Amino acid sequence: MKGLWLENQQLKLRTDIPVPHPPPGEALVRVLRAGICNTDLELKRGYYPYIGILGHEFVGVVEQGPEHLLHRRVVGEINAACGHCRFCLSGQPTHCENRTVLGIVNRHGAFADYLCLPVKNLHPIPDNLPTDIATFTEPVAAALEIQQQVSVGVDDRVLVVGDGKLGQLVAQTLALTGCNLLVVGRHQDKLVNLEARGIKTGLADAVTDQAFDISVECTGNPEGFAIARRALRPRGTLVLKSTYAGNLSLDASSLVVDEITLIGSRCGPFPEALQLLATGNIDVQPLIHGCYPLDDAIFAFEQAQHRGVLKVLLEISH
Amino acid sequence: MKGLWLENQQLKLRTDIPVPHPPPGEALVRVLRAGICNTDLELKRGYYPYIGILGHEFVGVVEQGPEHLLHRRVVGEINAACGHCRFCLSGQPTHCENRTVLGIVNRHGAFADYLCLPVKNLHPIPDNLPTDIATFTEPVAAALEIQQQVSVGVDDRVLVVGDGKLGQLVAQTLALTGCNLLVVGRHQDKLVNLEARGIKTGLADAVTDQAFDISVECTGNPEGFAIARRALRPRGTLVLKSTYAGNLSLDASSLVVDEITLIGSRCGPFPEALQLLATGNIDVQPLIHGCYPLDDAIFAFEQAQHRGVLKVLLEISH
Repeated sequence: MKGLWLENQQLKLRTDIPVPHPPPGEALVRVLRAGICNTDLELKRGYYPYIGILGHEFVGVVEQGPEHLLHRRVVGEINAACGHCRFCLSGQPTHCENRTVLGIVNRHGAFADYLCLPVKNLHPIPDNLPTDIATFTEPVAAALEIQQQVSVGVDDRVLVVGDGKLGQLVAQTLALTGCNLLVVGRHQDKLVNLEARGIKTGLADAVTDQAFDISVECTGNPEGFAIARRALRPRGTLVLKSTYAGNLSLDASSLVVDEITLIGSRCGPFPEALQLLATGNIDVQPLIHGCYPLDDAIFAFEQAQHRGVLKVLLEISH
Repeated sequence: MKGLWLENQQLKLRTDIPVPHPPPGEALVRVLRAGICNTDLELKRGYYPYIGILGHEFVGVVEQGPEHLLHRRVVGEINAACGHCRFCLSGQPTHCENRTVLGIVNRHGAFADYLCLPVKNLHPIPDNLPTDIATFTEPVAAALEIQQQVSVGVDDRVLVVGDGKLGQLVAQTLALTGCNLLVVGRHQDKLVNLEARGIKTGLADAVTDQAFDISVECTGNPEGFAIARRALRPRGTLVLKSTYAGNLSLDASSLVVDEITLIGSRCGPFPEALQLLATGNIDVQPLIHGCYPLDDAIFAFEQAQHRGVLKVLLEISH
């Protein structure tokens, strides 16, 4: 089969990859559409060691698997858990000690004709949900993880720092809580998406006082972190939603004096994400920059790295 | 009156300081005993700008104030709050936007014959509680703040990093929760104090696995932070109890991947601290290295800076 292979920070479109045989408990999924995420760009830059097929945001059709999923369109949770470690047994499979992660850790990903995932990771897609839109299930779930970790209410002043792919989804999901929300970014044209949905936006220098109860860092750069930190009131909460290249330097004493909480946030709930996409309560269509066939995957990657480009999709099959 | 004055990182024992006149709502307190804290040492090193009388851990006798406190021994909460800002109005006076802090921010401290504090900050000391012991009320309260912020139960594995003054108090207060506690430090002689109270201790390299639910950083140095971080299971909580000189460099991506919570922790509840000291549920006597008259305050400071020295007290009056 065909697949986009990463090795030594080089992407290569290979056509000699064998179609995988799903082990017991796993399904074989023919990939329809997949999205390029910042994590993919970071893997290519060599921030984490990974060799194999990239890609973890996808929609596919089950070709081998249990009856109730066969020939259905599905999305899939990316952490494949062992089921018997202390984290699995305590209901936290995304933190399984022995996990593999689709296209990220020891498991071939979605930028290929086929992938395998545990059957329990797969969620059928409602018939009315277009494939392009459903491709956003994984990042929307990740955005929803914030609300699993931090209580966000109508009285809370919440700041989202970053107007990229992740910031856009985080902002839309937080807006549904009715909180007092501000999104700051660097790109007026990206902020317009959010304003069209009634979300208040501003440029980064719009944050002038330590008034926010919660801030969410979605830029992955130290400047974004500094804005998110500066915006918080004492005893406020800073959610780290982005990974960072290298170490982050911070004023730990000010965290102590102001009793700030910092919380890292990763993968979230798929069922809720699918429901939000299916009901149209969040709108990801404006975030799609373009869709390219797998044959053009290397070009698509280049596009995705350009400043100002939001989501780039790969069309793998029909 | 006499007082230990800090200016331009120089300590000076002055005898020409006027006895303060308490403004409305404040009391005049004659200081009996005061403790030298790491924050005092850091102020002297110039980590924060401060000019004036140092000291914020004290026991004194009210000389001017309301009837119910007059001539009684008291301890005092160190944050003098305005009473009308949004933090005061929301019941968080320790984060008052306009606060002064005894011997730390814009308010003369306790290493002097007299000090002033708001009446509402003062707590009478039970008659059976010796003055030396009551001097520990402020740091014991700070240790108890952890339990105000983080739920600590009998099923939790908790690591305290640091066997100094703060680590000793944090360990003793956490031990009262019945949690599964380990304290690591560098000084076998200091760890012995804790072992004598039935608390499990080890040297820093005793932490080998990511198994702790909660870790508390009490060293204020990056090595201590690294141990506290490394010890945590995914979704664990790291309590920052110490301030740091300069910035701290950390792997923010790993906080995201492991969904770690970092929480800064400062001043805590005085009534609970007084009660623990009065009932003997925590024992601070072994932590007292020595007690010096105010005339020897500069020598006492030198003592307090020596490696391995725990609490140094100043005897100001009888």
